[in-house]
Amino acid sequence: MVVGRRGSSISSLRRIAARVFSSYSAPIHGIHVFQCPDVVGIVAKLSECIASRGGNIHSIDVFVPGNKQVFYSRSEFVFDPVRWPRDVLDSDFLRLSRLFSAEKSIVRVPDVDPKYKIAVLASKQDHCLVDLLHRWQEGRLPVEISCVISNHNRSPNTHVIRFLERHGIPYHYLPTTSGNKREQEVLELVEQTDFLVLARYMQILSGKFLETYGKDVINIHHGLLPSFKGGNPSKQAFDAGVKLIGATSHFVTEELDAGAIIEQMVERVSHRDTLQSFVMKSENLEKQCLAQAIKSYCELRVLPYESKKTVVF
Amino acid sequence: MVVGRRGSSISSLRRIAARVFSSYSAPIHGIHVFQCPDVVGIVAKLSECIASRGGNIHSIDVFVPGNKQVFYSRSEFVFDPVRWPRDVLDSDFLRLSRLFSAEKSIVRVPDVDPKYKIAVLASKQDHCLVDLLHRWQEGRLPVEISCVISNHNRSPNTHVIRFLERHGIPYHYLPTTSGNKREQEVLELVEQTDFLVLARYMQILSGKFLETYGKDVINIHHGLLPSFKGGNPSKQAFDAGVKLIGATSHFVTEELDAGAIIEQMVERVSHRDTLQSFVMKSENLEKQCLAQAIKSYCELRVLPYESKKTVVF
Amino acid sequence: MVVGRRGSSISSLRRIAARVFSSYSAPIHGIHVFQCPDVVGIVAKLSECIASRGGNIHSIDVFVPGNKQVFYSRSEFVFDPVRWPRDVLDSDFLRLSRLFSAEKSIVRVPDVDPKYKIAVLASKQDHCLVDLLHRWQEGRLPVEISCVISNHNRSPNTHVIRFLERHGIPYHYLPTTSGNKREQEVLELVEQTDFLVLARYMQILSGKFLETYGKDVINIHHGLLPSFKGGNPSKQAFDAGVKLIGATSHFVTEELDAGAIIEQMVERVSHRDTLQSFVMKSENLEKQCLAQAIKSYCELRVLPYESKKTVVF
Amino acid sequence: MVVGRRGSSISSLRRIAARVFSSYSAPIHGIHVFQCPDVVGIVAKLSECIASRGGNIHSIDVFVPGNKQVFYSRSEFVFDPVRWPRDVLDSDFLRLSRLFSAEKSIVRVPDVDPKYKIAVLASKQDHCLVDLLHRWQEGRLPVEISCVISNHNRSPNTHVIRFLERHGIPYHYLPTTSGNKREQEVLELVEQTDFLVLARYMQILSGKFLETYGKDVINIHHGLLPSFKGGNPSKQAFDAGVKLIGATSHFVTEELDAGAIIEQMVERVSHRDTLQSFVMKSENLEKQCLAQAIKSYCELRVLPYESKKTVVF
Repeated sequence: MVVGRRGSSISSLRRIAARVFSSYSAPIHGIHVFQCPDVVGIVAKLSECIASRGGNIHSIDVFVPGNKQVFYSRSEFVFDPVRWPRDVLDSDFLRLSRLFSAEKSIVRVPDVDPKYKIAVLASKQDHCLVDLLHRWQEGRLPVEISCVISNHNRSPNTHVIRFLERHGIPYHYLPTTSGNKREQEVLELVEQTDFLVLARYMQILSGKFLETYGKDVINIHHGLLPSFKGGNPSKQAFDAGVKLIGATSHFVTEELDAGAIIEQMVERVSHRDTLQSFVMKSENLEKQCLAQAIKSYCELRVLPYESKKTVVF
Repeated sequence: MVVGRRGSSISSLRRIAARVFSSYSAPIHGIHVFQCPDVVGIVAKLSECIASRGGNIHSIDVFVPGNKQVFYSRSEFVFDPVRWPRDVLDSDFLRLSRLFSAEKSIVRVPDVDPKYKIAVLASKQDHCLVDLLHRWQEGRLPVEISCVISNHNRSPNTHVIRFLERHGIPYHYLPTTSGNKREQEVLELVEQTDFLVLARYMQILSGKFLETYGKDVINIHHGLLPSFKGGNPSKQAFDAGVKLIGATSHFVTEELDAGAIIEQMVERVSHRDTLQSFVMKSENLEKQCLAQAIKSYCELRVLPYESKKTVVF
Repeated sequence: MVVGRRGSSISSLRRIAARVFSSYSAPIHGIHVFQCPDVVGIVAKLSECIASRGGNIHSIDVFVPGNKQVFYSRSEFVFDPVRWPRDVLDSDFLRLSRLFSAEKSIVRVPDVDPKYKIAVLASKQDHCLVDLLHRWQEGRLPVEISCVISNHNRSPNTHVIRFLERHGIPYHYLPTTSGNKREQEVLELVEQTDFLVLARYMQILSGKFLETYGKDVINIHHGLLPSFKGGNPSKQAFDAGVKLIGATSHFVTEELDAGAIIEQMVERVSHRDTLQSFVMKSENLEKQCLAQAIKSYCELRVLPYESKKTVVF
Repeated sequence: MVVGRRGSSISSLRRIAARVFSSYSAPIHGIHVFQCPDVVGIVAKLSECIASRGGNIHSIDVFVPGNKQVFYSRSEFVFDPVRWPRDVLDSDFLRLSRLFSAEKSIVRVPDVDPKYKIAVLASKQDHCLVDLLHRWQEGRLPVEISCVISNHNRSPNTHVIRFLERHGIPYHYLPTTSGNKREQEVLELVEQTDFLVLARYMQILSGKFLETYGKDVINIHHGLLPSFKGGNPSKQAFDAGVKLIGATSHFVTEELDAGAIIEQMVERVSHRDTLQSFVMKSENLEKQCLAQAIKSYCELRVLPYESKKTVVF
């Protein structure tokens, strides 16, 4: 059960926020996602709870897969934080979570809650990392980048390093060898993060790493999974003579390139495309696909579903 | 207010269906759409109503446009017709409709309700008409085609005429002149229909016709509205040197090609395309675009919104 | 070398056509494709040959893959059949073919040459077969369908059987068993065809069959190859939780679903899609993808390239 | 006639290049575009010319619009600059140009010729400008940016200004008023450029400006022309209730948003999209669409065709 999973680490901030709210009453925006065994009346109870506090539902997505007896929902609502203070809101949803034996119940108030903290892991290829930094700078990626970790060295004079310095984002160079993946050091650096982003990190994270970290890790693969797993998928696709190439963002699991898919994008190629143009077109897809996955994740749109699927509301 | 708008004409059928239900209790599928002034608690009341009768919501879409104080929803739910007979279901939703001063409240039980009756109006061009007939024959268009009306004569030996004869669908040839649009005769032929489909009907329906008919009319326009209104949009697009052509399905209003848009599709063109290939690509789009609009409409996914927009859940 | 590969069987027809031409001189349209080792001056010789006979090149596509020393071209030209009779045309291109040691040199004059003869092989699923028949009927598929062969029985009352009867196309029901694939009978039925189309034929053709037939066989696979080879690719894709599904038309080789890809198409899916909607979306893609491949093939746009690729001009 | 239109200004550079070539003989890449009245034998002469100097054609695109008696071609070839020095190459093509009374004959040797010099004009909106700068920095835009001109002031601390300073690209702030468009100053600043890029420049360039400048000006319009000309096209599209929005890059003519279209891109929108999300989706399209147009233009793929069209090879 992942009820209020970000709870303890940020409860004090929330208390402060609650106090700040008390001083005014402009309506703010809340998001709630819920996963529980399917029974009659869940939507009724959720919406009654929100309405009873004066909250107004602006959208609600419900998904009940056929013959699976599972219920997923995502609600967006507008509420008055004076009338419905955060601690009351949290305990209201906790009560519902218990009532329906929820496996997951997460609430976010984006205007008030701290942004998700992420770390970005990269290797030599820059394009996804640079794209994430630019989107973040333009305010289009609702995250706080706590650090960038790379197993590839960069000169202080590169665009990435200068950008990170200017914005005060630490850069950690951790060269890996086949004998030393530096996983322990990575774990220490990312301890405070909410999730990890692998922006073309050319290392396989061990099951032990994933278990210890315990939170989600999002990867971008430059192929249309489940085709072209593993190394050099652009070369694999080129040799296979495909007419469409793609990119896939997915959750990382111990098994290589086999975690649940979040987003996929494609583009046409022809006999005129070279391996080099496959790579360039792929890079363009990877950037968009990874950014879209992160954005959806931060907006609580992505829920794991069965062992290898995702609900993306 | 359009509450139960198809009510009286099919109430007897529904009574029969209700009686049929009584003999077993396999759960069936219901759809409810609702439009009313936005207040707190609508979703709560709707879902509580469904749950109180043992109905289980499988999906619910809510749309509350910013600063508009209007609420739209579409719910799909599974229920036991013995436990929740149709007359009780209807009166339950009628009560909610009154409670929230709904402008629209429609319920359908697709497995039991009669299919929507449509008439298809066409001129010389066959492609949309033929496509609709094929989709209908393959069971992919949930409608009953009460008749086909054309202002273009067809020999009895054509595919269309033979198809219609084989399936017992009447074909009415009503040649129009600038002085006589035959609107009165069309009105009489389509009186029993639930909505009309203009499958490349090259006549403008008068405001009087639309008012007298009083139900929805869906048109396919072979251009990307609001570009290329009026005659020969493919030629207009060809002359404008566009690199993308499109098709638009929309509701018909008195003003030519200006009704609310339901669906639009596009395809790339290049300098190598001729006017003829513009037309061929367009026809392919028109078929898909019109079929999609009709399908969405029959599934109660399309709601008019403001004067010129649609919600398409 | 496949120079003039359709030659002997239709040479008499061509002689008749040549004589017909002699009586008038409206310019007609020719297509020439060429594959040979790359050297300097091929385009010059080809275009000089066409120009010397008064032919006017309307388009020419050249492809010389990097570091491969192979040259591919496809030319479209307009010529006067009186000034350049077909036998002279053929011998002109044969001379060039010898000059450059061409592996392939095919010329077609679509307005005059007999249409490509095909046989369509199908099993139980009808959608691709029906779609091909409709396109053929509408004049959008430039082939002659010599027969339809199926290992699934159809009642005389079905749309397919009635359609075939009405158009005088033979239908052969050849039930297969694991022990008897009926390949010998198929071979006899298709002997006069120019290529075969597998429209969801659920049998693997043996290497011996392919070798004996000796001409091209085009298949449609309902998955995005090289993902999801073999049986039930829609189920495979559904279980893999993909966000994009696709269809692939390709040449058939002895190895299952591994021949060179001609065309691929995709469509988005989401968690709301069921296995059934995967299948329906896939069927829509399959129809378009197969028809596109056949059309491109007939227009001499498709050339095998390396062992597993195609040039699609 | 625009034969060798960049000739005089860079002839000295070419002479230097020619001398550099003499010292080695690695084969290099040439591009030639040609426009002339259509007659028999143009491809033959062009390809014979290239072959006679040992050049090897790698691709050739020919376009002869139906019933227009115009011929357009674009050839890519590999040649040995020792065997075919630039001055000979130029005079060879000049001879052909005269032979066929060509309206246009341009040759480029991208590895050797100076990059096209452009100036970018922008207003307040940064997204297209920033995107161009990033692509340029990553080596994906084969141009030299001679300066950026803006009628909107930027603080020295902004990303744009810092970027330009770091790369030594002059930034000119020229505030415009309804009485003073500063066109004379712009003209002086852009005199040495090969073409201009309007990256959301919110000023209409006068016919006099365009005539005096005399070279091409490429604009990005945030609407799917010819729909939504003029101001605030995103608002226009939003109000029209469209289901697809687009962006258009086109040549600038005196008539607002009416020049020949080079590239168009679209994206789906729904009732859930707000004016703000229309703008965000549009900005993403604008960036890609403008960059694509510039790239095609620099590769000599874009040729004006009739009064309002383009050939884009």
